[in-house]
Amino acid sequence: MTYTPVAYNPYDFANRRHIGPSPAEMEAMLKAVGVPSLDALIDETVPKSIRQNTPLSWAPLAEHELLAKMREVGSKNKVMTSLIGQGYYGTVTPPAIQRNILENPAWYTAYTPYQPEIAQGRLEALLNYQTMVADLTGLPVANASLLDEATAAAEAMTMAERSAKSKARAFFVDRFCHPQTIAVIRTRAEPLGIEIIEDKIENLDATKVFGAIFQYPGSYGHVRDFTDQIAALHDAKALAIVATDLLALCMLKEPGAMGADIAIGSAQRFGVPMGYGGPHAAFMSCRDDLKRAMPGRIVGVSIDSRGNKAYRLSLQTREQHIRREKATSNVCTAQALLAVMASMYAVFHGPQGLRAIAERVHFGTNRLARALKAAGAKVSPAAFFDTITVEVGVGQAGILAAARQEGLNFRKIGNDRVGISLDETTDEQVLTRILRAFGIEGVPPHRAQLGFPETMVRTSDYLTHPVFHMNRAESEMMRYMRRLSDRDLALDRAMIPLGSCTMKLNAAAEMMPITWPEFGSLHPFAPADQALGYKEAIDDLAAKLCEITGYDAMSMQPNSGAQGEYAGLLTIQAYHKARGDTQRTICLIPTSAHGTNPASAQMVGMQVVVVKTAPNGDIDVEDFRAKAAAAGDRLAACMITYPSTHGVFEETVREVCQITHDHGGQVYIDGANMNALVGLVKPGKIGGDVSHLNLHKTFAIPHGGGGPGMGPIGVGAHLAPYLPGDPRETEGGAVSAAPYGSASILLISWAYCLMMGGEGLTQATRVAILNANYIAARLAGSYPILFMGNKGRVAHECILDTRPFAEAGVTVDDIAKRLIDNGFHAPTMSWPVSGTLMVEPTESETKAEIDRFITALLAIREEIRAVEAGEISAEDSPLRHAPHTVNDLVAEWDRKYSREAGCFPPGAFRVDKYWPPVGRVDNVYGDRNLICTCPPVESYAEAAE
Amino acid sequence: MTYTPVAYNPYDFANRRHIGPSPAEMEAMLKAVGVPSLDALIDETVPKSIRQNTPLSWAPLAEHELLAKMREVGSKNKVMTSLIGQGYYGTVTPPAIQRNILENPAWYTAYTPYQPEIAQGRLEALLNYQTMVADLTGLPVANASLLDEATAAAEAMTMAERSAKSKARAFFVDRFCHPQTIAVIRTRAEPLGIEIIEDKIENLDATKVFGAIFQYPGSYGHVRDFTDQIAALHDAKALAIVATDLLALCMLKEPGAMGADIAIGSAQRFGVPMGYGGPHAAFMSCRDDLKRAMPGRIVGVSIDSRGNKAYRLSLQTREQHIRREKATSNVCTAQALLAVMASMYAVFHGPQGLRAIAERVHFGTNRLARALKAAGAKVSPAAFFDTITVEVGVGQAGILAAARQEGLNFRKIGNDRVGISLDETTDEQVLTRILRAFGIEGVPPHRAQLGFPETMVRTSDYLTHPVFHMNRAESEMMRYMRRLSDRDLALDRAMIPLGSCTMKLNAAAEMMPITWPEFGSLHPFAPADQALGYKEAIDDLAAKLCEITGYDAMSMQPNSGAQGEYAGLLTIQAYHKARGDTQRTICLIPTSAHGTNPASAQMVGMQVVVVKTAPNGDIDVEDFRAKAAAAGDRLAACMITYPSTHGVFEETVREVCQITHDHGGQVYIDGANMNALVGLVKPGKIGGDVSHLNLHKTFAIPHGGGGPGMGPIGVGAHLAPYLPGDPRETEGGAVSAAPYGSASILLISWAYCLMMGGEGLTQATRVAILNANYIAARLAGSYPILFMGNKGRVAHECILDTRPFAEAGVTVDDIAKRLIDNGFHAPTMSWPVSGTLMVEPTESETKAEIDRFITALLAIREEIRAVEAGEISAEDSPLRHAPHTVNDLVAEWDRKYSREAGCFPPGAFRVDKYWPPVGRVDNVYGDRNLICTCPPVESYAEAAE
Repeated sequence: MTYTPVAYNPYDFANRRHIGPSPAEMEAMLKAVGVPSLDALIDETVPKSIRQNTPLSWAPLAEHELLAKMREVGSKNKVMTSLIGQGYYGTVTPPAIQRNILENPAWYTAYTPYQPEIAQGRLEALLNYQTMVADLTGLPVANASLLDEATAAAEAMTMAERSAKSKARAFFVDRFCHPQTIAVIRTRAEPLGIEIIEDKIENLDATKVFGAIFQYPGSYGHVRDFTDQIAALHDAKALAIVATDLLALCMLKEPGAMGADIAIGSAQRFGVPMGYGGPHAAFMSCRDDLKRAMPGRIVGVSIDSRGNKAYRLSLQTREQHIRREKATSNVCTAQALLAVMASMYAVFHGPQGLRAIAERVHFGTNRLARALKAAGAKVSPAAFFDTITVEVGVGQAGILAAARQEGLNFRKIGNDRVGISLDETTDEQVLTRILRAFGIEGVPPHRAQLGFPETMVRTSDYLTHPVFHMNRAESEMMRYMRRLSDRDLALDRAMIPLGSCTMKLNAAAEMMPITWPEFGSLHPFAPADQALGYKEAIDDLAAKLCEITGYDAMSMQPNSGAQGEYAGLLTIQAYHKARGDTQRTICLIPTSAHGTNPASAQMVGMQVVVVKTAPNGDIDVEDFRAKAAAAGDRLAACMITYPSTHGVFEETVREVCQITHDHGGQVYIDGANMNALVGLVKPGKIGGDVSHLNLHKTFAIPHGGGGPGMGPIGVGAHLAPYLPGDPRETEGGAVSAAPYGSASILLISWAYCLMMGGEGLTQATRVAILNANYIAARLAGSYPILFMGNKGRVAHECILDTRPFAEAGVTVDDIAKRLIDNGFHAPTMSWPVSGTLMVEPTESETKAEIDRFITALLAIREEIRAVEAGEISAEDSPLRHAPHTVNDLVAEWDRKYSREAGCFPPGAFRVDKYWPPVGRVDNVYGDRNLICTCPPVESYAEAAE
Repeated sequence: MTYTPVAYNPYDFANRRHIGPSPAEMEAMLKAVGVPSLDALIDETVPKSIRQNTPLSWAPLAEHELLAKMREVGSKNKVMTSLIGQGYYGTVTPPAIQRNILENPAWYTAYTPYQPEIAQGRLEALLNYQTMVADLTGLPVANASLLDEATAAAEAMTMAERSAKSKARAFFVDRFCHPQTIAVIRTRAEPLGIEIIEDKIENLDATKVFGAIFQYPGSYGHVRDFTDQIAALHDAKALAIVATDLLALCMLKEPGAMGADIAIGSAQRFGVPMGYGGPHAAFMSCRDDLKRAMPGRIVGVSIDSRGNKAYRLSLQTREQHIRREKATSNVCTAQALLAVMASMYAVFHGPQGLRAIAERVHFGTNRLARALKAAGAKVSPAAFFDTITVEVGVGQAGILAAARQEGLNFRKIGNDRVGISLDETTDEQVLTRILRAFGIEGVPPHRAQLGFPETMVRTSDYLTHPVFHMNRAESEMMRYMRRLSDRDLALDRAMIPLGSCTMKLNAAAEMMPITWPEFGSLHPFAPADQALGYKEAIDDLAAKLCEITGYDAMSMQPNSGAQGEYAGLLTIQAYHKARGDTQRTICLIPTSAHGTNPASAQMVGMQVVVVKTAPNGDIDVEDFRAKAAAAGDRLAACMITYPSTHGVFEETVREVCQITHDHGGQVYIDGANMNALVGLVKPGKIGGDVSHLNLHKTFAIPHGGGGPGMGPIGVGAHLAPYLPGDPRETEGGAVSAAPYGSASILLISWAYCLMMGGEGLTQATRVAILNANYIAARLAGSYPILFMGNKGRVAHECILDTRPFAEAGVTVDDIAKRLIDNGFHAPTMSWPVSGTLMVEPTESETKAEIDRFITALLAIREEIRAVEAGEISAEDSPLRHAPHTVNDLVAEWDRKYSREAGCFPPGAFRVDKYWPPVGRVDNVYGDRNLICTCPPVESYAEAAE
């Protein structure tokens, strides 16, 4: 018989799972936009002159095919017990934390907590993190994490430079810092003209430097007290930075007790898998009077509209409104998700548990040292915590091989030593294997004997706050994590239409492999033959990203978008330098650029020249031409974003690139808006020499509540030789601690590319543009849309102008907070233009969800109209009282509108409504009363009396 | 130096993670109870005469050690592609469903939805399941799942027996039913005196039977139309049951269209891993007029106190208040979590996707058949869907071996045939390997050609309800699953103090291995050498359970507690029969017994004699003695629960056992209360001959919102030969479809035992008793505590008497619903005594959480006092209006108490409050208007207009 099969592929990830609108929905949306087809819309939107015509080449995989492939690739990695140390250690991720945070979309799909009312859960967790860091380091103020230990060290150096009263231009680096820390410090120092003095701490001349960094335990294990060196620095008005280890500080005298000004390090070993390099949270803490100079985000405590305690990001303005040309750091990116995990690890274990773990590690190391010494080995240092080195002379290769035979990786040091770092996973059996690798049978008995001087024993308390003393039963912990996540609004409940942030679906299948031991357990410095699976994944991802971008080479090292910019400019600089063009120091940047662009240029020592923006939001080509000409052979680069930060495909992009090239400059195309290009336009083919890609935007890595991210850079072949080098090599220009940055999350982007296929990725771009144009079309009658292309189309985002409402007293803030009543995260506020909302729906949102958002915005427009018409004042309107909380409902109702109108505006769910835990947060109060560690216990009493 | 290490083991799972109260909390609780120590409390509670003194033998593992062991054991299972079919098929679990349901505590820790106000999410998911089953089978009413396909068939048989007007006593079984289905039907039929006629359907004589079961696709692949046989049965007033396959029904004419009365089958292949046998959801649907005879739970639609749509369990009373001695079925247990997964799979794929998957499977099978026939093989049947068999003669062993060489398992049929069943995972590569096993190279091209007659093509629509047509983007699906789970209250938010249900922690580490492919992908009938990991796990768990219970042998086959009871009594019966004691048919059961006890006795054809309960709740020993004597050599067994269902350790338990044995009877000790015994008392050593264990109570398997569960039975050595046999053998007395029941979740109990260690398990029992006595001590002044032991102690649960409040008009329901306002699930209501609340905190709850619960109950007592004092009427009080919803807050407030008092009673969280999605559900309305499939679309419109 003739049977007609159904025309539907249930395994089509791109079109059925990742891309939101169904074919029928797309039809309706195209109609609303007023174009006959998606092809026609794209033709109207993306200039023909830059379009590529060759489709991306690879076929898609179904979800189950992807997972099968990932298992196969994972099996090519060898999971060994890595005792390499050097900043990365085995750790036990408590299963309750893995399942309820790392594998829970309520945590991993959240955005950075700029809207505090809908982020109280992760703000509390991050405040716990800050408290933990402050306590353990003995310094009063900590930030909510940085990218990695090495960049934290570099940040600390520039912070010291900004803050120290010393006029010296040199910076001292303890030679016992980790090699990758030294490498990244050197990379950072060079363009800033800072001289690096790397030496034994005994040789420090404090008068010659504005600051110094010391590390304990040192990279080779040394436990030292820096009190004298710090005093000398202070005498010379220089600042002291101490790199350290949180677990060691559970036993060792803390940096604060030595007088340190700044402490930095990594929180990786607090329950975060090594993941072949990351992501992990680095930490930084400092003296109270330095806090306003500290980079990164700081969570603080404020009050809400009813005077109740509320958390928020303190000193927030400096991030989004970074001081552009004057910026000295763009590393605001945090590793929020990993910081949350580390903080929960501390809550989970409490001070007792952490101390017990530290002791376990230390006494084990001591047993190991005793056994080796008893067997006649030359073991150093004399004072250690978890790391020792053994002189093995010409036997080095043999010992390393014997260790591998036992399933162990030791650290190779020089040509005659090996290093061994113990961690909380080191049990009797591992100790036995370590000693067996040296030909020693048996392990000496456990003894509570210290391997460092009594003077180095920590005497102060830590983690005294009640949150670290809650009952540690799993039920209690699980409920605490759930309660916190329930306070927050993430992608698992609603769209997050943040312009420029590309909050698309982070599919479950993409997230699964990262917690498999085959990927999670690898040390970033493990021998290459143990990481063949990673190599395959990273090489293939790089090849696909090259195909997508039209570049010839890719560096996977930068572990954030800002790091990518910085690395890209360093690459350009190295290129010019290699050609003898050292005079090329000018970087042209349009006013519309993201604030990180000028900040990055500053960081590499370039001189920023600002180019005007035309009234329609485009680059003013004539101004560009004039300024390029003025720069002449001093032109190093231009930095542009494409489509522009105004969400427009400028027709002139090729021209701008040409002008730059004509003057010998290099073109940096910021990849922030790559989600509007993939499959349609290759930046490397329209004139770009370098771009970074925000894998956490365009390529599906979740935002994790403010990190992790990855910012690999693609470059033309001529720049390939100048990409960042291996962080283990001092002169390589490394920008991150690990060779592939936060390697484990590259798997997410790879999985995304594999499942989408080339065609699916292209369709995603097209639908992202459709979704944005649909919103623009539906809202244009109510909100002026700023910046459209020639044909009246926006790209993948659109800017709603709310300035016309100012006259009536309605602010952009009012609209943003009112959206919370509808269960939405606000669009990007006041960027790139003050008083506007930039909306980016991404391709993953369905028509239904977008319509709900449009319904909400139209209803808000009606509320504004009522204010404009004088029916209600702005102060009395629900706009100003937003967001509404349960407390508002319960309290006496003296509003000029009903409870119903206040709490259930059109678009809000009824049964499934999201209730913000606090009312509008008072920013002024928070900045005036900066509290950056956990507030006293009373404020935690949640159960009503 | 002398360094004092901290005395704390951070890896102590039992005392730090599983057991709730910390040492300090325990001190405070003992003080409140009024005993000097935990030892003293246990001495006062558990009679010395029955205490065991040898500690349980094994040492505990830390969480990470457990996971390492699980990986090692899992690696001993060989993951092959099983094409064995026979009711179990490869399937693709959508990652979004795996992560957001199966791995999400909000779903898996929920209890059975008896309290509908806090269970609207899973009730909706289960209603979707019912709609899916009703649609696909073409019968109007479906239940919310049964244990497995074989028991569903047996249930259908007894349902037919109860409902058919035919007076015949025989039941016809199509010989093409699965062997395990036939085996379980035979086991069930025998004690009920039902004759089984197993034959070709052509030989059916409808006048000889009250019912018949036919299967399509048959176990060997046959696709047949039963219309004629069904008509003949109907002419003879007999009923027709059709066993079928949901995926096949996406292409094949449905049972309803053939006139079937009842349809049954398994929903496993809708996204639920095989798991070496389970758990999966079986389904049953029937004609509308049979619905009140249908076993299992049925979700229905009702209204709440404001008239809004609300889901609930319909016909609920028959379950908890089962008609005891007259009961004919005790299988009320469902597989809720797995039914939810299967329903989400249908939502995820929609009718189009399901049809596409069915076609993929069918056309693949057709290609396979074509290739085999072309190569000269004898392939049958002529009409097939997904299964074919091949005559291979003496080459059988060779073909099976060649298949294994290709990584495939075929089904061995007789000595000369092999069976091959395709599934949605069968791709080109698998087809190639199958054919290669037969020495055939290449696969014939795809053709949309049917392998069954045109008359068997399905012509009716299915899954037309909008829920199956929602946009299938993962963002939308993820949010739908989140919204549903947010409506529910599970262990991840609060304690669930359900007496007799032992809602303890289900630790994340225990749950992790079950979703690993090494455990999830195994077919229950895979060759033994491929399941060595499972064998190790199951054998070790059995050994540990034997040590715990004092029994000599254990059967892991029963997949629910009720199945365990049934299997235990069958074992006793087989033992008597083997000794020629066929006259032993009397079973003594105390009035206090759980309703499933008499129901189980009925099911095995025993005659129930009820024994009185003394006023203190104990068994009336003299009455027991008299009735045992009266039974004399007709005494088969007694069934007792220990400690009693009243929560008391009766001193007379040994005496009762002795009396039973004196008369030649066997003692069945119900393991429902095993959580009060582990490590303290071994039922097998105090006189028990058989017990079942509820692994989903005492041994940490999560309740999954109403299943899965496992009810293995332990027996003395003399009974071991009579345990249930292999379900693949007709005469073995099998009770479940798979040899080890829901094998994969045995891993959870094993993990629990391994991490707790013998000592930890014993401590858990002791703390469970402490927690219950603490609640009793704190509440005794406010609520009379029913039934205490001699020393005034309760066991692991306590019964609060609420009957004294009846006079004031306050019901037990009022209290239960008021607890929802505090964010608590109610205790067990009106069982074992009407008008009471039975509270079981379990050992996992912390003092803080228990105190919050006590605070809530004390406040409720104050509210009752106000009613008693005439300050407010019961009707006007917050007790009657409970639970309070957001709708109450928004609406006009005309209550005699404040919003604050209504919504935030003492004990409730403020910020983190759980808001029930509906007000009190109207049970009468629901039973009067029985709607068991999804209501029309209007009621789904959630977003406010």
